[in-house]
Amino acid sequence: MSGTVYLVGSGPGDPELLTVKAQRLLEEADVVLHDKLPGPELLGSIPADKREDVGKRAGGEWTPQEYTNRRLVELAEAGHTVVRLKGGDPFVFGRGGEEAEHLAEHGIDFEYVPGVTSAIAGPGVAGIPVTHRDHTSSVSFVTGHEDPTKDESAIDWAALADTGGTIVVLMGVGKLPMYTAELLSAGMDPETPVALVERATWPDQRIGLGTLETIVEVRDDAGIEPPAITVIGGVAATRSRVRAFLKNGPDPGDDAE
Amino acid sequence: MSGTVYLVGSGPGDPELLTVKAQRLLEEADVVLHDKLPGPELLGSIPADKREDVGKRAGGEWTPQEYTNRRLVELAEAGHTVVRLKGGDPFVFGRGGEEAEHLAEHGIDFEYVPGVTSAIAGPGVAGIPVTHRDHTSSVSFVTGHEDPTKDESAIDWAALADTGGTIVVLMGVGKLPMYTAELLSAGMDPETPVALVERATWPDQRIGLGTLETIVEVRDDAGIEPPAITVIGGVAATRSRVRAFLKNGPDPGDDAE
Repeated sequence: MSGTVYLVGSGPGDPELLTVKAQRLLEEADVVLHDKLPGPELLGSIPADKREDVGKRAGGEWTPQEYTNRRLVELAEAGHTVVRLKGGDPFVFGRGGEEAEHLAEHGIDFEYVPGVTSAIAGPGVAGIPVTHRDHTSSVSFVTGHEDPTKDESAIDWAALADTGGTIVVLMGVGKLPMYTAELLSAGMDPETPVALVERATWPDQRIGLGTLETIVEVRDDAGIEPPAITVIGGVAATRSRVRAFLKNGPDPGDDAE
Repeated sequence: MSGTVYLVGSGPGDPELLTVKAQRLLEEADVVLHDKLPGPELLGSIPADKREDVGKRAGGEWTPQEYTNRRLVELAEAGHTVVRLKGGDPFVFGRGGEEAEHLAEHGIDFEYVPGVTSAIAGPGVAGIPVTHRDHTSSVSFVTGHEDPTKDESAIDWAALADTGGTIVVLMGVGKLPMYTAELLSAGMDPETPVALVERATWPDQRIGLGTLETIVEVRDDAGIEPPAITVIGGVAATRSRVRAFLKNGPDPGDDAE
């Protein structure tokens, strides 16, 4: 009798942003397969003897997705209740869809347990709503880390600019110069507000604020590094209007601008 | 000494999908301002004497946003700890941004507490990842309920089609014929998979599956009604590949197709 695999979102890192269901499943699980994305505080709260790290390995290499897929099937076939803990939500740029398909192909029961995505909570804790009636009717999420086996970017930045909606880029610190240039040449206003949220909801979270034209300089001056989220659009200016009364950290005086 | 207002996301409706923090704040709050979106099960778990419904009123009218804004300030100024409980995440099509700005303008401390958004969890519990390496590098969220004071739709459906990414429409049952037609005339493939997820994560959740060309008929035959989420894109076909092993309800045999 095979066990069940739970594809569980951990949320953005603050352990209090786990769902009640994720917290229960972490207690009930025999094994928790995870990478580094759930963050040190949350991982530290899981007993070490039931954790298996399938993220970066000793030699600095990444565990191939095929290994994780195989390991999930192996553990379930051995009758274990398995939690596959993923940063944010399992189905947002997390390869959770591939894991679900692999489990179904191998006849393993699985359940999806959604999590708070940092794509929304990251901007949010900085006081930035990804949608706002006065600014935008849509929001698009893209990843700065695309499939490295693809020859060229599958992201149509000009089409994203044309939507007129907020654009949120996950893992987009490194390629910031590339896509801000693409958006500018697609005709987006150079004065469009842009925010960077580094290590969203973690104790050492930092925020950078600028425009499509200035944000690369803000990043460089402040030394903002991955993991961080980029928010592009009118909504990014909300932080400066609300931060004096916003109780989510960090201190507004520390903003890089 | 004014109290603090917590803008709290309730998640999609399943009480176990509250965050640990939201659960704690609901217990600690003096007053909980809510509408119907968090769902009957979750609202029923909050003591009636600290709930204030700012959703639909007795006469069938909606409470104006101005009333909610004013009431939040009033309660905080009276020294209360206030939870403003919102369906999903407060900053996704929830007017949470407007409430945050109103609080800041009136000098009231507030905190944003993210929630699981039904825009991602709704497709997810149906076995549909909003992103997938094989299908899409982006996902866009739009609302089918736009500001009624606006003369025309601010949504550029053709630009959304051009992104090549998944499109998720919240509250989009009523206008389904309009926007499927717009996407078709923008050149989107009529065979593009489309899924409807009605009352996502609620006990009576239902799912409809079709294509850009057939989904209106599927909706009409099955009588799918609001609230529901529409998912447009290759990822929508994932459900039929995984549902036999997916433990999230409902029974795959009940799918409308």
